[in-house]
Amino acid sequence: MANKFVSMRNLKFTLHEVVGTDAPATGTSANGHTRKSMDMVLDAAFDFAKKALHPIFEEMDRNPPELVDGTVAVHRDVRAILETLGKDGWISATFPQKWGGEDMPASLLHAVYFIFASANYSASVYSGLTMGAANLILTFGSDELRNQFLPPMLEGKWQGTMALTEPEAGSSLGDLTTSATPMSDGTYRIKGEKIFISAGDHDAVDNVVHLMLARMDGAPAGVKGISLFAVPKLRQNRDGELTSNDVTVTQVFHKMGYRGAPITALALGDRDDCTGYLVGEPNRGLSYMFQMMNGARLEVGMGATAIATAAYHAALDYAKNRKQGRRITDGPGGAPVPIIEHQDVKRMLLFQRAISEGALCLILQCSRYEERMHTGPEEERADHKLLLELLTPVAKTFPSELGIHSTSASIQCFGGYGYCEDFPVEQHFRDMRIHAIHEGTTGIQGMDLLGRKVMMKNGKALQLLDREMEATMEQAKACPELLDHVQALSDAKKALATTTMGLGSVAMEKGPEAFLANATVYLELFGYVAVAWQWLAQMTVASQKLSEQKIRTSDRLFYQGKLAVGRYYFTHELPKTGPLSVTLTRPPVSLETETACFTD
Amino acid sequence: MANKFVSMRNLKFTLHEVVGTDAPATGTSANGHTRKSMDMVLDAAFDFAKKALHPIFEEMDRNPPELVDGTVAVHRDVRAILETLGKDGWISATFPQKWGGEDMPASLLHAVYFIFASANYSASVYSGLTMGAANLILTFGSDELRNQFLPPMLEGKWQGTMALTEPEAGSSLGDLTTSATPMSDGTYRIKGEKIFISAGDHDAVDNVVHLMLARMDGAPAGVKGISLFAVPKLRQNRDGELTSNDVTVTQVFHKMGYRGAPITALALGDRDDCTGYLVGEPNRGLSYMFQMMNGARLEVGMGATAIATAAYHAALDYAKNRKQGRRITDGPGGAPVPIIEHQDVKRMLLFQRAISEGALCLILQCSRYEERMHTGPEEERADHKLLLELLTPVAKTFPSELGIHSTSASIQCFGGYGYCEDFPVEQHFRDMRIHAIHEGTTGIQGMDLLGRKVMMKNGKALQLLDREMEATMEQAKACPELLDHVQALSDAKKALATTTMGLGSVAMEKGPEAFLANATVYLELFGYVAVAWQWLAQMTVASQKLSEQKIRTSDRLFYQGKLAVGRYYFTHELPKTGPLSVTLTRPPVSLETETACFTD
Repeated sequence: MANKFVSMRNLKFTLHEVVGTDAPATGTSANGHTRKSMDMVLDAAFDFAKKALHPIFEEMDRNPPELVDGTVAVHRDVRAILETLGKDGWISATFPQKWGGEDMPASLLHAVYFIFASANYSASVYSGLTMGAANLILTFGSDELRNQFLPPMLEGKWQGTMALTEPEAGSSLGDLTTSATPMSDGTYRIKGEKIFISAGDHDAVDNVVHLMLARMDGAPAGVKGISLFAVPKLRQNRDGELTSNDVTVTQVFHKMGYRGAPITALALGDRDDCTGYLVGEPNRGLSYMFQMMNGARLEVGMGATAIATAAYHAALDYAKNRKQGRRITDGPGGAPVPIIEHQDVKRMLLFQRAISEGALCLILQCSRYEERMHTGPEEERADHKLLLELLTPVAKTFPSELGIHSTSASIQCFGGYGYCEDFPVEQHFRDMRIHAIHEGTTGIQGMDLLGRKVMMKNGKALQLLDREMEATMEQAKACPELLDHVQALSDAKKALATTTMGLGSVAMEKGPEAFLANATVYLELFGYVAVAWQWLAQMTVASQKLSEQKIRTSDRLFYQGKLAVGRYYFTHELPKTGPLSVTLTRPPVSLETETACFTD
Repeated sequence: MANKFVSMRNLKFTLHEVVGTDAPATGTSANGHTRKSMDMVLDAAFDFAKKALHPIFEEMDRNPPELVDGTVAVHRDVRAILETLGKDGWISATFPQKWGGEDMPASLLHAVYFIFASANYSASVYSGLTMGAANLILTFGSDELRNQFLPPMLEGKWQGTMALTEPEAGSSLGDLTTSATPMSDGTYRIKGEKIFISAGDHDAVDNVVHLMLARMDGAPAGVKGISLFAVPKLRQNRDGELTSNDVTVTQVFHKMGYRGAPITALALGDRDDCTGYLVGEPNRGLSYMFQMMNGARLEVGMGATAIATAAYHAALDYAKNRKQGRRITDGPGGAPVPIIEHQDVKRMLLFQRAISEGALCLILQCSRYEERMHTGPEEERADHKLLLELLTPVAKTFPSELGIHSTSASIQCFGGYGYCEDFPVEQHFRDMRIHAIHEGTTGIQGMDLLGRKVMMKNGKALQLLDREMEATMEQAKACPELLDHVQALSDAKKALATTTMGLGSVAMEKGPEAFLANATVYLELFGYVAVAWQWLAQMTVASQKLSEQKIRTSDRLFYQGKLAVGRYYFTHELPKTGPLSVTLTRPPVSLETETACFTD
């Protein structure tokens, strides 16, 4: 197995040099974070990832969770991992100090998650899910619920989940039927079925708390009648003892990848004895959930980016060490060279970096907006929120979809070995494929972007993004070697704006179905442009640093590499926006095609 | 599991109505084939595929081959399958009547293989490999070798293989080191290692015959010193009994997919007792092998096409039957609709058909050239050979690479279920990924296309292809609704020609490394154009049929569907050639990038 799974140099470059931070380099700051302390956090995360997560990356895949006597058995190390993550404060990190946290900024949290997920994606999701669920309880739950659930969750002793999907309600959440009947003591009796619940049960924790969507008796139909409940696997009886809460695991799904984490189906209230606790107000469950969902979607994007990153490092390691063939310019008598010397291999490595490093930068930029929503100047907070909301479906989807191609290229670097279990890349390829599905499929993200985010507040978010891109381009103009790329981004941005306007006309003239028919294509177009913006930002920093007089050789190579990957992105990837714009100006073929024509 | 894995209607449409055949509709023909008899063959193949191959599609994946006591144990049905394929004449079908064959035309053979591979890719490769190996013996072997090996191979009792790759010689075959020492009886003593040998050993046959590349003592270095040998697992001693030939299975590879067929590593001559029989003349092994390899590459393309086809049918079945969500134009009160009614799902289905049906047509067109190389007018045979050689890397790669995206879209149609083993598409996605690797990686195909095929005979093949495309466009012009597409293909063809010329200048000015640096991108561009040509041919037929007065409803829907998928291809896929041409006019980024820049 490859030893290296992440470049800390690149992560710190992206975080400190490109995206930036409120924290001063050293000294003290408001929330106690400095660049130096942030680096210490990152190094500690890397250390833990390397020692505890990465060594069982393959083992967890080869020994997937099994349902044994009603409980899901997972890898034996998961309990110790969760206990350490709890004890050392990783799960509570972003929480207020009252709950043992340290108000960690969002970008640092996402960077930590990136390291964990690069080391072992499946192992990283358990605590991430608990954080999301705990955050919902913190934000919307009563003090009683907080006091009951938060301490053991943040200590890593109880698992948190998001329980949305049902057999007949996945992308269509408005159709969910799990019911909640009010009881005299203020609790609710829950009855129904949930499927595809990540970490929905396992034996590495003492309890599981499901943040579950259900419908109160008599609630309105559709999305407006959905409430949020905390439904524990075990509930406390009057003596404070934990007893069964009538939550049954009915299935552990056997998946292509992401096999170290259990995905379960649950039956709730088979014996009419499942208690749920209302979180927040009735019928507002979906809007609550979506506040967590947006964070979860960024995390999915980060997970995909992390997997692509780890696969790239495996491919790079192989390409540097595997000798075969000669350079074309050498005769057949020459000595075999490391395959990285072959142009096609180098091209594939450039592609993998272009995708994963571009996506990393975009997601950290998003988490920077998330931070500034809370800590930035009061008058700018609403803008940062809009930018975050606009870019979330993009940051979720670009790495999830392009990550399939990127990990495929990692396999290709290995040739036949890449297809075999002897090397980790085939697992990365399998682990990757879930990301375009979970937390909202790519189709859902496309409709969210075009149908909601782009249109909200009369296109305000898009205007803000335009301003952000212009600012980046303005900085890039100081570097003569980047002028072509500034122009290319400017052109792509204009084409995106024109396409958006054109689709607006379609919406008015032909209605919402025609408007949204190619929303996925629009999302793809948007992603290429957004990542070009992030590449231009990275190249600007690299170009500036290279112009400094004193520079270490290792830094020089790093920044030169950045410029090369950026050039690759602008030469090979950004031009792909052209045909997407063209396609989006044509009438949608799917809309014209009768379903009856799918005869065979 | 989905019941339907292939559309016989579409296969027959492509074969008879689009690609065409020498066979008359009925009556008798030179080699005994009529359209009617061809359909009978196809229907019989379908019947066998449905009854014997498809039912064990998943079982073979879940129970991959294992090395037990030196022999590879495969699924218990494989022996019966091979015996039936032998007994019923499928393995010998293309062979002369002397060997029990019936001179089956190449396009019919490929169509049969398409059906088998759609039903169960892994199960289909055993006999395909035997046919290829037997064909080498027939073409280049002595009568003695033919008499010894062909009968049991064609009866399905002995397995044939292609044994090329070694641990240090994969894409770089010139480096192979397996040695062949001449013995006094005219045989050779073989010593070396081979890896990644498909069906290199298994317990469903009585013997295995490896068509193996090795280097005679004292042979020239590189590709010019490679000879071809038949190396059986068991050799006949003087009494005609089969005894060990010192061929040892050292490993069965554990693969991501394609798990129903064993890929093995072999040690030859560990006890200095491995006998090989020279096939043909010394040092001509690689050119012999490449005559089989070209057929094998078409077959890889067909295998990828078949997998994409089966995944499409699974997705279609699910999309027609799975109800969820409403059409956007319905209110939330409307009834849930089958998900095929959602534009994004329909778009994904159109994409899958565009790839698989386009690739099928291209490959059958290639096999038609293969046929006409042998049966066409004498003066045209050389041209057909050139066309086949030019298009082989394209027909291999387009479905192998786009098939990854296509099966990924099949998964996406299922949502979360697509990622689970409960449905077959995750297996199709895994089975697909080998095709861009085996029988020459995509990188090798790109260099073959641009560096050899396009350049051979001063670009003669490209001129011939241009003529073929012009002929198709001429026919399409009779259909007013296709004029836009004729223009689009004409533009794309011109852009391809301009790009090719530009690359020719690069070759002269900057040498072969710059010329070939983006050969893979060139191959991608070429593939989109070639498949557009095939879609135009299909659309022309569909348009003509629809203009006929009497037409059955089922035919009308089929042809309308064809036009819709073709429109999808021209709207969504062909425009992708634009940026590829642009990229190819720029200096290759990989060439400019120092390897040292890959520091992290």
